[in-house]
Amino acid sequence: MKWLQGDFTTIKELLEIERTKDDPQTKKTADAVAAIIQAVRYEGDDALRAYTNSFDNQDILDFRVSSEVITEALNSCDPELLKSLTTAKQNIESFHKQQLANGFVDTEKAGVVRGQLYRPIETVGIYVPGGTAAYPSSVLMNAIPAKIAGVSRIVMVTPPSEAGIPSTILAAAALAGVDEVYKIGGAQAIAALAYGTESIPKVDKIIGPGNRFVAAAKRAVFGEVGIDMIAGPSEIVVAADETANPAFIAADLLSQAEHDPEAAAILITTSQTIAEQTEKAVTDQLQTLARRAIAEQALQDHGKIIVAASTADLFEIVNLLAPEHLEIQLESPFSYLHAVKHAGSIFLGNYASEPLGDYVAGPNHVLPTSGTARFSSPLSVYDFQKRMSFVSYTKEALEAEKDAIIRIAESEGLQAHARAIQIRYKEEF
Amino acid sequence: MKWLQGDFTTIKELLEIERTKDDPQTKKTADAVAAIIQAVRYEGDDALRAYTNSFDNQDILDFRVSSEVITEALNSCDPELLKSLTTAKQNIESFHKQQLANGFVDTEKAGVVRGQLYRPIETVGIYVPGGTAAYPSSVLMNAIPAKIAGVSRIVMVTPPSEAGIPSTILAAAALAGVDEVYKIGGAQAIAALAYGTESIPKVDKIIGPGNRFVAAAKRAVFGEVGIDMIAGPSEIVVAADETANPAFIAADLLSQAEHDPEAAAILITTSQTIAEQTEKAVTDQLQTLARRAIAEQALQDHGKIIVAASTADLFEIVNLLAPEHLEIQLESPFSYLHAVKHAGSIFLGNYASEPLGDYVAGPNHVLPTSGTARFSSPLSVYDFQKRMSFVSYTKEALEAEKDAIIRIAESEGLQAHARAIQIRYKEEF
Repeated sequence: MKWLQGDFTTIKELLEIERTKDDPQTKKTADAVAAIIQAVRYEGDDALRAYTNSFDNQDILDFRVSSEVITEALNSCDPELLKSLTTAKQNIESFHKQQLANGFVDTEKAGVVRGQLYRPIETVGIYVPGGTAAYPSSVLMNAIPAKIAGVSRIVMVTPPSEAGIPSTILAAAALAGVDEVYKIGGAQAIAALAYGTESIPKVDKIIGPGNRFVAAAKRAVFGEVGIDMIAGPSEIVVAADETANPAFIAADLLSQAEHDPEAAAILITTSQTIAEQTEKAVTDQLQTLARRAIAEQALQDHGKIIVAASTADLFEIVNLLAPEHLEIQLESPFSYLHAVKHAGSIFLGNYASEPLGDYVAGPNHVLPTSGTARFSSPLSVYDFQKRMSFVSYTKEALEAEKDAIIRIAESEGLQAHARAIQIRYKEEF
Repeated sequence: MKWLQGDFTTIKELLEIERTKDDPQTKKTADAVAAIIQAVRYEGDDALRAYTNSFDNQDILDFRVSSEVITEALNSCDPELLKSLTTAKQNIESFHKQQLANGFVDTEKAGVVRGQLYRPIETVGIYVPGGTAAYPSSVLMNAIPAKIAGVSRIVMVTPPSEAGIPSTILAAAALAGVDEVYKIGGAQAIAALAYGTESIPKVDKIIGPGNRFVAAAKRAVFGEVGIDMIAGPSEIVVAADETANPAFIAADLLSQAEHDPEAAAILITTSQTIAEQTEKAVTDQLQTLARRAIAEQALQDHGKIIVAASTADLFEIVNLLAPEHLEIQLESPFSYLHAVKHAGSIFLGNYASEPLGDYVAGPNHVLPTSGTARFSSPLSVYDFQKRMSFVSYTKEALEAEKDAIIRIAESEGLQAHARAIQIRYKEEF
C-alpha cells in the first residue's frame, strides 16, 4: 500500500495526479459495440445467435430460461443459503419501501391546480455478468427496488456458458420476483434489450454492471432506453482514529481488495499508530486469503494509507475521493455525518463492516463508484419510478397570468405561443 | 397533417412504422466530438479559443462574462418583461420547493440504525444554445431547481456571436441566481465543463439542450460528470372530445409546430367533427403566423390527426406515444389522470394551454421528449440532489446477521467478505 502524508493540499495534489488517466471508453471498444448494436437492431435473433456462438462459444436455440429450470434451481438451493438470501431480501425490502415516493397536489392559488404524479417504469432489464462476477446478492439488490416501485415486467439477461447459469443466480432471481431470464450476454444483450428482437423484449430501462463492452453498449443506447450508471471498479475508504481496531480495518480493506485487481482500498487516519498497525494486519491477513493474488494486486496498485493532519483534513480528503463505500471508525461516528458531502454508502462505527452492507443490512449495494458520488446516488426505488407534472387553470386564473405569458413569448419570438393564450379571450388574428 | 383512423391495433402499427429511424448519433458526429473533447481536455483554453474561432468565428480572450455586463443587461431589461419573468420565477420556485427531498432514519430493529441523507450537487453547468433557440424561460427552468436544491456554484455557458449574448438571457441568468456566465458553445463547451480548463471550472453535472454536437458530447462525457437527458424535438399531443374548442386546439398545436421543423403536433380525438374543424382552424391560423414556414414544415412531416374509436383507445395511443406535453381537453379531465401512464407534463381542461406551462405555471418545461417519458421525468430539484445511505450496527445486532452474511459471502466465493465479519468475533485465521 502506498503511504501519503502531509497537509490537505499536499495529499490533494498527490491524489489528483493519480486520477489523470486515459479515457475508459476506447474508440476501439465503442466502434466494436456500435457494429454489434446495429446488427442486433436490424437482424435480431440471428445476430444474437452469431455473437453468442463467437463470443461465448455456445449454440443457443432458445434464449429463454424455462420456468421449470428456475423452479428447479430454487428447489435445489442449499436451504441455509436460501434462508440467508431471504433474510437479505426482507431487509432490502423494508429499507427500500421507505423510498416509495408519492405525488403532491398544490391548490394554493384560486382556480389553479398543480401537482406531480408517480408511475412505475413498465419494463426493466437487469444485466447480470457471467463467470465469477455473478452474484446472487446483486440480483436481489437490482430486482427488489424495481419490484417495490411496481415495475410490471422485470427481465434478466446473463451470458450462457458451458456450465449453465449458476443455480444461485436463478434462485435469487426467483426470490426477487424476476419475471423472465434470458441466456444472452455482452453488448449484444444490451442491444437486444434496447431494441427488442424476436425472442428478447424491448425494455424501458437497463440496469446492472458489466465489462467494458456492456458499459459502452449502455452508453450508446442511452436515450433509446434509460440506463442506471456506468459502473467502475469497487472502492472503500476507511476513516479511522485511535479508537478503531486495526484488525477490523484490515479485514474490511481486504474485502474490497479481493473483488478485482482494479479495486481500491484506502485508509485515512489521524493516527500514525493505527496506520502502521493496519498495514501490518493487512500483510498478515493476506497470507491465508484464497483470492490473495487479486487482493495483493489491488493493494499494490490502488491501496493507500493516508495519514491526515486533522479530522477536518480527513473529511476534506473523503469528500475529494467521494468514495463508493465509506466506513467511519471514529469515536462518535454519527457526529461526523454532517461532514460527509460525497459518498455512496456510509458505515458508522466499528461493527458496521462493509460486507454487512453488501448482503443484509438493506440499503442498496449498487453504488456510485470512482468519485461519481459527487453527482449520483445509490440504486433505489426512485430509479424505477418516473414523475409526470400536471396543471389545470380556470379561464379566470389563466387571464391573471395572460400578460406575463404573452410578454415572455414575444420576447422569445414565439408568436404562436402568445396566440394560444390570446385566442382563449377571443382576440382575433 | 396526416390522418390516422381505425382501431388501436391499426393505429399502433402505423405509428410504429414511423418510429423506425436511423440512429440519431451518427458515427461522424461522435468521432468529431471525441476529437474536440480530447483536445479541450489536454490543451485547455488554447483548444477552446481555436474551436471558437473556427466554429463561431469569434476571437475570445476572456471567456467570462463580467458581472458588470450581466448587471447592465438586468438594468436595461424592459421593465414589463422583467416583471413577467419575475412572475414566472415565483411560480417556478413555489412549485419546485415542494420537491425538496428530506432524508429518513429507520430505527425499527434494536441496535440498528439505517437511513438516507440528501446533499446538493456542488457545481452545475447549464448549456444555453445560441441564436434563436436562446430562451430566457429555459434559463429560469434550468437554474431555479438547482438553486432550490442548494447547488453552490451554477455556471452557464452559451456560444459567443457577433451580436453578443442576448441581454434577456443574461437578465434571466441574473434573476435565477446563475453565478458565472461563460461565452463558449458547442461540444467544446461541454468538454470544458466536464474536465475543466484554465478559465472554465470543472462541474459535477451538465444540463441543458443543444444541437447534435452538444448532445453527442454530453453522451461522451457521461460518467465523468452527470448529465440530464439527451433532448429531442418538442412534441404535443392534444386529447380532445366534442367538448373541446377546435380553435384552441389548433392554436396549441401551432405553438408546438412553430418551434422547429422537427416538432410534432398530434391531435387524438374521439370526435370526427373536432378532427375536421381543428384541421381547418390550423390551416386558417397558419396563414398569418410569423413562423409559418417552420410550422408548416413541422405539420407536414410530423403533424397528425388521429381519430380514436373510443376514449380507452385514445389513452392507449397516448401511452404508446408517451408525449412530452399532453393536453387533456375532455369533459372531466381530472378523471382521466389515472389513464395516463407515460407523459412529461399534463395540461388539464380547455384553459390549460401548453404555453402556460412553458412560461409561468411553475412545473418545469424541461421534459422528456420522443417517447422517453416511458423512463424519464421532468427536470426537477431531485436532479440536483443526491442521496447517501448510512447504516450503523452494534456488535450484538451484527452478530444476529452474522451467519447470513458469511453464508452469502461464501456462496459468492468472497472469503475476505466473510472474514471481515468473523474477525469481529475473534475467529482466528
